[in-house]
Formats: sequence, structure tokens, C-alpha cells
Amino acid sequence: MIAKKMGKLVKNNSVIREMFEEGKRLVKQYGKENVYDFSLGNPSVEPPKQVNEAIEKCLEDKNIHAYMSNNGYEDVRKMIANSLNHRFATNFKESNICMCVGAAGGLNVALKAILNPEDEVIVLIPYFMEYRNYIENYNGNVVEVLCNEDFEPDIADFEKKITAKTKAVIINNPNNPSGMVYSESVIQKLVEVLSKKEAEYQQTIYLISDEPYREIVYDGVQVPYLTKYYDDTLVVYSYSKSLSLPGERIGYIVIPEEADDFENLVQAITIATRILGFVNAPSLLQKAVAECVDLTSDISEYEKNRDILYHGLIRIGYECKKPQGAFYLFLKSPMKNEREFCQLAKKYHILMVPGSSFACPGYVRLAFCTDTKMIENSLPKFKQLKEEIEQYE
Amino acid sequence: MIAKKMGKLVKNNSVIREMFEEGKRLVKQYGKENVYDFSLGNPSVEPPKQVNEAIEKCLEDKNIHAYMSNNGYEDVRKMIANSLNHRFATNFKESNICMCVGAAGGLNVALKAILNPEDEVIVLIPYFMEYRNYIENYNGNVVEVLCNEDFEPDIADFEKKITAKTKAVIINNPNNPSGMVYSESVIQKLVEVLSKKEAEYQQTIYLISDEPYREIVYDGVQVPYLTKYYDDTLVVYSYSKSLSLPGERIGYIVIPEEADDFENLVQAITIATRILGFVNAPSLLQKAVAECVDLTSDISEYEKNRDILYHGLIRIGYECKKPQGAFYLFLKSPMKNEREFCQLAKKYHILMVPGSSFACPGYVRLAFCTDTKMIENSLPKFKQLKEEIEQYE
Repeated sequence: MIAKKMGKLVKNNSVIREMFEEGKRLVKQYGKENVYDFSLGNPSVEPPKQVNEAIEKCLEDKNIHAYMSNNGYEDVRKMIANSLNHRFATNFKESNICMCVGAAGGLNVALKAILNPEDEVIVLIPYFMEYRNYIENYNGNVVEVLCNEDFEPDIADFEKKITAKTKAVIINNPNNPSGMVYSESVIQKLVEVLSKKEAEYQQTIYLISDEPYREIVYDGVQVPYLTKYYDDTLVVYSYSKSLSLPGERIGYIVIPEEADDFENLVQAITIATRILGFVNAPSLLQKAVAECVDLTSDISEYEKNRDILYHGLIRIGYECKKPQGAFYLFLKSPMKNEREFCQLAKKYHILMVPGSSFACPGYVRLAFCTDTKMIENSLPKFKQLKEEIEQYE
Repeated sequence: MIAKKMGKLVKNNSVIREMFEEGKRLVKQYGKENVYDFSLGNPSVEPPKQVNEAIEKCLEDKNIHAYMSNNGYEDVRKMIANSLNHRFATNFKESNICMCVGAAGGLNVALKAILNPEDEVIVLIPYFMEYRNYIENYNGNVVEVLCNEDFEPDIADFEKKITAKTKAVIINNPNNPSGMVYSESVIQKLVEVLSKKEAEYQQTIYLISDEPYREIVYDGVQVPYLTKYYDDTLVVYSYSKSLSLPGERIGYIVIPEEADDFENLVQAITIATRILGFVNAPSLLQKAVAECVDLTSDISEYEKNRDILYHGLIRIGYECKKPQGAFYLFLKSPMKNEREFCQLAKKYHILMVPGSSFACPGYVRLAFCTDTKMIENSLPKFKQLKEEIEQYE
């Protein structure tokens, strides 16, 4: 007697749960030190110590647990706007920020605010599969755009996929699962097409930039701040990864003054926050992250993991791009069917997520936000796995 | 370019904002001590000190900010189940509890899990108007049931309103805005009808009990625990009122073993928590409230306020029922149009919410979770207000 739509999700979910249960079974049978779990994007680096210090300080305020406006504390929004202005030479005020319950909450709020039934939302392959659920929550239709071998969007395909029904494009930069960062030149090509199509169809197409990995970049790579390239941009940010606070559900949405229908958009996003049942982002954590807006967890840990994993796998003979951001490495599957590759890897107690879970078969995702020792110990196993596959060829 | 549905909400919202702005204007013009604001249900009593102590203790756990399962920490769910079993002689396990982002989040999750488009959801007048938005989020239709002068549901009307499309009934006990508690006899009549209709239509009708005010009751009134009366019950609970933590967004859903389709229902509620973007209830607060499951803020403060307000108003000649629970008094409007009454009251700097905002015109809601002194000082103003109205008669 659950909802029909939910019935399908429950069925799919049991597949993921089985994978998860199998991981637990492997750990139980062989010991944690003999299982190489690359499946979860759970930050392995601790939050900066200033986060807990800020929480303790905030507890002294006797109103810290009370209601505030649905869009969050005004002083918190001001501190975030100031930090963005300082870092990205933007010009935001507190009225351009709406606090949200993590990026997942923020994306739902943004989509609720803008989508009419049957509106189309474009996603760029490879993409985080939850986008599909978020879009369908508001009866929108998902439209996928192909990518090239560098996991950059195929601009011709992008142009072709935009129709009179396109209401939004979701972009995730740095990208989960590819570990790539869309460069300024890619962004410029995307927004050129978008601007052209907005004029052609005489309607707004919002660019929703999902940016929980913004600060997790390597080798000095720059992540363009999209409001500077395209007016109708909404930035959805989360502190889950940058401050290692994924359980706390705290982030914000940026609504730039230049966005079409700005006043109504701010109101709609605030009301969506209320009626979807978020009501407001958790109060104590709002105040605490405001004290830490310019901090991150120790990103060098992820960089070290990336280097060990990337160079180790290349040395063995695997193929992959060197991750530029986030904490994922997207490995080319040495077997035609990457699901079979994931299956075979389990024999060596290696757990990975098949690329088809990101609409990108032929690849597998390795999350390297894990113990460094585990990565080092996994490399001989990856070698054995490769050798077994080569035997069959 | 916002969604059409949101456009209507933005328009309505500006009316509420105007009221709010007018309140701020009054405070600015006449000083806080000369404004009698009964409009907001924001707990005035501080959380018990154990809450902040628990938060500080939880910060010592270095994984406190990490992801956990979407339904929440297992140990937290177990502690909540044990507390319920101890207090209400129930028999819940951790598998019967799903942590949620406040009652608003819990209600959205529950409705997402069960509603198909065009399903009907019954609400009992007077009711919290947000239910309407929550139901419409999932394309359900709202069906209102009338009440008698004691604000108890009209059982004949309830029976008449249940159709083959009825998927759920939302009940709020103790009730916002009436301050009444549905007695065991009322509950028995409701579930008798529900059971008969389930048999007649051969389908499940879920009873969703929204219970943020459960612990806020006076004069030893008992609030029946609904899972003991009806199998297909979901209890949605929040710590917002009982522990004065409305900004933190923390609560839980009870899914009893006896509920129809139990296994799928648990899965659907867990998945709905994930895909609606809540992901999980805030981690630090989950662990903290688990240490405080048997505590409440100082309810005697609200009782004192109730007594002063109720007896004061009766003495002046106003009509109302004595509140049995929650922190609301539902006053019979001495003017035919209660919106005009609210308008006139502003002349005396008294702010109240018209009953039509709860589908119950002819009454106004006074929230007495406020400063006691303010209530005392408001009484002469209520007297002047009454005298002015009597002049016109």
C-alpha cells in the first residue's frame, strides 16, 4: 500500500542494500584490514577543530535552538556572502543567500521552486543518480547529455537536447563521479549555448550548479564561479565535504540579483524550504559554520590518497584520468561489462561502484576519501585482479 | 519564471509577511513592552540544561558529524523505542523508528511514501494549514472534516468523507490551534469508522498522528497512544516543543510492526528521507536528544501562562474553552468576522491569528508560549478592546 513510484525505488534499493550487506559480510569474514572498500563518498578527514570550538561557543547563546526565518539567520547569510565576495570577487548580500539542509536539500528546494510538471531538466553524463529522483519529485523529466572521453559535455549534443520545455540544467563541478573539473572554456561554451537558447525560446533556463566539492581541488585547478558567467544561475553549496560535516545537513543556495524573476525566486525558494518540511537549516550548525566560512578540512590528505591510487593503478596498467577535484577516480573498466568487473573485484575484496550507476557504463568509481594504508594495501590486489582478467583475453 | 503552484504561494505569503512586518513596525513605534504578540508558536521556555550538556559530550566522538544510515543511528532509535515502550506500554524496536528532520519533515516523508496522485487525505478542522501544502506536494487532495463546538471531529461527517480514494487521515493531538486533546472516546469512535471503511473498501487507510505537543498537557489529561488503537498508524514526533529545539529540526516517525505493508513502508519512508533531500536527521542532535528522551522543558511555565490568560479573558467576558494541551488558546471572536476582530485588536497592539487560517472562522488563536508579564499586561488591553466592540452593538 505504499505509493506506486516508491514501490519501484524500494525494488532498486534492495540491490544497493545487497551490495552494502555484502561489504559488511566481507569485513566480518576477512577482517576490516583485508577489505578494500572504495564505494562510499564519506569524508575520511576530520573537520577542522574550529568547527567544534564554534559549536561550543554558540551554545552560550540561549536562543541558539530557536526558530529563525525560513531562509536562515541574517548574520550567517551575511558572513557567507562576504566570504564569497572576498574569494570570488562577487557582490552578494545576505538577501542573495538562503540556508539549506545540505546540497540534497538545496537541490530539492531549487527544483520545487521552478519546475512545472513535464518541464525538462538537463543533466550531464556522468552524473550523480540522485538528480533523477530529485527532478522526478516535482514531476520533471530528465534529459541526459553525452560526454567526451575527458568527461566534458558534448556541446553539440547539449545544444540539440535543449527544447522549449527545458527549465534547468544541473551541473556538478568538481564532478562526482569523474573527478574532473569543467574548465572556464567548457563553461563558456555551455553558457553560450544557454544564452542563445534562452533568446530563441524567449524563456529562462536556470543553471543549477551543485558545488559540494568546490574546495576539494588539486594542482591549483580553478573552479569557475558560475554566477559570473551566466545570470540565471543558482549555486547550491554544502559544508558536507569541505568541512567534513555530512551528517549535519548544512549548506546554502546562492540566488544572484541578476537572475530572472529574482524577487519571486527568493520568495519561492524560501517558501519551498518551509513547505517541503525543512523549515530551516539546523540552527546551531548555521551559526557554527558561519565562524568557519574560510576554512576547510585538510585537503592534502585527499591529494596524497589520489597520488598513491592514481600512480599505483597506472603503473599496474589500468587506464584513467588523473582526478582534478572531489575525491573520486573514474577508472576505465578493463572488462567490457563494468558490472562484471566490479563483481570479479569482490573476489579480491575490492568494492567499487559501476559507472552505469552514473549513466556511464564502461567505467567504475573509486572513492579515495579513505584510509591511506588501505589504498596502499589494495594495489597488489588490483594487480592480481588485472592479471586474472588478462588470462581470459 | 518560478513554478505556477509556487506563484500562488508567493502571493499568499506576502499577506502573512505584511502581518509580520506590521508587528515589527508596532514594536519599533511603541516599544516591545507595549506590544502583545500572541501570534507565534515559538517555545518561550528554555531547553532543559541536559540538552547542551549532551551536545558537548557528543562532540567528543570524532565521528559525530559523519553520515549514518538514512533512517538514523541504530542506538538512538533503540533508546527512543525503549523510552516509548516504558512510557506507553508499547513494544517497539529500533526497526520501528525512523529519525526525521522535525515533524514537518516527518509528515512530508510519510506522505511521499504513501500517496499516489489524486489520493485523498482527510484533515480535521481546525487544523494547521501547512498540512494542505504537505499533501499537495505529493499531488494529493485535501478533504476537510467538520468539528463540533468542543473542536471534536463530527463523526458522521468523518464517515461521509471517507471514500475509495482516502489514503490517509492526519490527526494532531494535542491540537494546534484549539488547545484541545482528543479523548480516548473520540479516538475510539474515529478508529471504529476507519476500521469499518478499510473493510468496506478493502484498502489501507493510514492514520498519521502529528504529535509535537504530546508532552505539553495540563491537569493530568491523557493523550492516547494511537498505535494501540489502530494498526495502520504512523506517529510523527518532534522535539521542537517538548525540548524547545524548534530550530534544530529533529524528530522521529514510528512505524509499528502491525501496519499494513510494514517492510515496504519502512523502506519507502527511509528512501523518501533520502530522495526528498533530508538524507538523515542532523547527526549531532540525534545523539544529543537520545540522552534526553525522558526529559521536557519546564511545562509548568506554560500552565501558569494558560491560567493567567484563560481566567483573565473569561473574567473580562470573552468566551473560550480552557486549553488542555499545547500552548494555544482558541478564543471565540466577539465580532462576527474574526479577521475584523484581529484588525481592531491591533489598535490595542494585540497580535493574534484569525481562525480562518485554520479553516475555522469565528475564532482567533492566541499562542501563550510567551513572556508571562506580557500576558498580564495584555489583559487591560483586551478589556478595552471588548468595551469598544460592545459600544458598536
